[in-house]
Amino acid sequence: MSTEAASPQGLTKSRIEALSDGIFAVAMTLLVLDIKPPEVIQAAALPRELLALWPRCLSYAVSFLMLGIYWVGQHNQFHLIRRADRTLLWINILFLMAISFVPFSTALLSAYPLQPSAQTVYGATLIAIGLILLSHWAYATRRHRLVDAELDDRMIRFVIRRILIGPALFTLAIALSSFSAAASLLLYAVTPLLYVLPGRVDQHWRPSGR
Amino acid sequence: MSTEAASPQGLTKSRIEALSDGIFAVAMTLLVLDIKPPEVIQAAALPRELLALWPRCLSYAVSFLMLGIYWVGQHNQFHLIRRADRTLLWINILFLMAISFVPFSTALLSAYPLQPSAQTVYGATLIAIGLILLSHWAYATRRHRLVDAELDDRMIRFVIRRILIGPALFTLAIALSSFSAAASLLLYAVTPLLYVLPGRVDQHWRPSGR
Amino acid sequence: MSTEAASPQGLTKSRIEALSDGIFAVAMTLLVLDIKPPEVIQAAALPRELLALWPRCLSYAVSFLMLGIYWVGQHNQFHLIRRADRTLLWINILFLMAISFVPFSTALLSAYPLQPSAQTVYGATLIAIGLILLSHWAYATRRHRLVDAELDDRMIRFVIRRILIGPALFTLAIALSSFSAAASLLLYAVTPLLYVLPGRVDQHWRPSGR
Amino acid sequence: MSTEAASPQGLTKSRIEALSDGIFAVAMTLLVLDIKPPEVIQAAALPRELLALWPRCLSYAVSFLMLGIYWVGQHNQFHLIRRADRTLLWINILFLMAISFVPFSTALLSAYPLQPSAQTVYGATLIAIGLILLSHWAYATRRHRLVDAELDDRMIRFVIRRILIGPALFTLAIALSSFSAAASLLLYAVTPLLYVLPGRVDQHWRPSGR
Repeated sequence: MSTEAASPQGLTKSRIEALSDGIFAVAMTLLVLDIKPPEVIQAAALPRELLALWPRCLSYAVSFLMLGIYWVGQHNQFHLIRRADRTLLWINILFLMAISFVPFSTALLSAYPLQPSAQTVYGATLIAIGLILLSHWAYATRRHRLVDAELDDRMIRFVIRRILIGPALFTLAIALSSFSAAASLLLYAVTPLLYVLPGRVDQHWRPSGR
Repeated sequence: MSTEAASPQGLTKSRIEALSDGIFAVAMTLLVLDIKPPEVIQAAALPRELLALWPRCLSYAVSFLMLGIYWVGQHNQFHLIRRADRTLLWINILFLMAISFVPFSTALLSAYPLQPSAQTVYGATLIAIGLILLSHWAYATRRHRLVDAELDDRMIRFVIRRILIGPALFTLAIALSSFSAAASLLLYAVTPLLYVLPGRVDQHWRPSGR
Repeated sequence: MSTEAASPQGLTKSRIEALSDGIFAVAMTLLVLDIKPPEVIQAAALPRELLALWPRCLSYAVSFLMLGIYWVGQHNQFHLIRRADRTLLWINILFLMAISFVPFSTALLSAYPLQPSAQTVYGATLIAIGLILLSHWAYATRRHRLVDAELDDRMIRFVIRRILIGPALFTLAIALSSFSAAASLLLYAVTPLLYVLPGRVDQHWRPSGR
Repeated sequence: MSTEAASPQGLTKSRIEALSDGIFAVAMTLLVLDIKPPEVIQAAALPRELLALWPRCLSYAVSFLMLGIYWVGQHNQFHLIRRADRTLLWINILFLMAISFVPFSTALLSAYPLQPSAQTVYGATLIAIGLILLSHWAYATRRHRLVDAELDDRMIRFVIRRILIGPALFTLAIALSSFSAAASLLLYAVTPLLYVLPGRVDQHWRPSGR
């Protein structure tokens, strides 16, 4: 533990959260810069040009939701983490570095929605974020380093399994991309819904929350 | 209710607010990127070119005010909502996804102020935000789920009516856009003033505030 | 007074501050987007092209400092204002609308540093911000509406005089711009220093601060 | 000391931190705007074009980490600083002005990674940030002006030495740039790791942290 961990006010934890909220907010909002008003010659062509923006709107929605999911994930971890230390701080900054990269990956996917290399970069970015978030949790919970001693091991493993859903599906999407770019895209679009829609998860969280 | 709802510190509520404030701040400030210094050949033409920016400045002002109005609306709801749960969290992220879309809709309206399709996209964005905010309130207040049991039903209905003003007028603006694009634009410009200018509203709020 | 004013937690005041800090942070950081790496053909030309960026760097510095000054000004007012009400809220949103406009005015001045019309738009933006900040203070302090009853009238007038320095000098800069664009530019560059450098001001603040 | 220093709530300190977190978040996230999807004619060329982005990705990573390092540095200082005064406030705004400049310096280095003038501007920006942070600490600790009277002099000097690592290495990188642009680049890439990787530092911090 460093001085920051020793800080009784938890100042570090709250400032990491403040920086994170800021970076998430900017990254989520920058996504829209990738959707630009079409440049049309004839007014009559505008409706058709607008409809042609749908792949960009889909990328926007998927990336926004995935950023929201990762934001909730980090938030939930911090809810259970009691204090921060130097290593946790730098894992967080690495995490935010990957988060800030999402607007680029999204712009790339929007520009080349059916190219395997673009799909791979997009998937790799989201996998990297997931794995950093996983290491964040693994570091904090190893021998209950930064969490309450009473925190249930089943809860620790449950969070790990839940984080892994994303990277697992995105690895599948990357593998699919060489065979069927459309199937890969579909998988990217469906994955966020698995996190967002309520399910067994919430029943699991309930008892351990009190 | 999930663990987050059970959290006695209301951590989740304050972090949703932090992310919201960040996204509103970025979305509101990005609007200005749509107004660019004119590229002129002759210096003498600059004043005229600057005056020609007025439709963009008007879009900027209307969108900024509407974002301000929705920010106040969300803020007022959170003032009365006692705790957050998982569903409320995701309604909020959907809300923020629509908020972040406003810079695109504004850029579109600025580029094509008199095109019905641009006016429709702009109006549809603002209507979507209003309806998500409405569902946020409806979810939180249904059977006083997330608000105080004492919260007056008249107050609940008053908030609903107030939110609906925007979507109602924007629906009218969309309907108008095919007949008179100018009248539609005017309606977009006037609507924010209805929220901003003081009126009977404030008398209504006063007694229930204590 | 509305419910928000009645709110004992001062929630509204702190959320206005949060939105303000966000908008100031974004507006201040967006200024740099106006300084772009030069596009050069020959590597040998790069140093010269970089030196040619100085007017943009100067605009950047002046605008950043003026935004910093107005941020401090709003902050100092909120330090003395005890509660917010609906009118104060909307004055603040108008204030932020003008703040968000600064990146455009700066980009315009950077592109046309010696054109009277660009200098006028730049000055008018900063004057508008100053006058809105003045009305913010006038509204809050009139009959000690939102400040402590004990707040000294001399302090109230001192803040007013201090805010007026900027708009007064910027009005002079606009008037000068038709005669000598260089003198006008110089005045824009010097004004922030009057606020930043320590002076009699600090002596004045000291006794009334306790 | 001004009124702000006298403020018992430490309001100023927390609002400087809020503005700083916002500006750091925006500056860190804007870095990615410099990496753009390649514009390719043939789909087969996309993978090669993506690989060609690696210098931009490296600049992104180095700048992101350096901003993270400076953010941690400011944060650590504020942890030990008990109150803010007017001078400290303006040193901070100067600091943030240099921080906001980093996206430009990074874009410049990305565009001209092997040009001495671009390397010099990049290094000079990071040196300026380091020196402002140093003056921030020197001002706060001189005769224990704004820190606890008990703060150990060895701790004060330790922080100074630690801040100086960056500017010293960046000065070397600038000096190297005329001889070997590649060696200079390498030094820029290695420096952040010296701060991020754990080392003797952490042992040093531990005892003085309580």
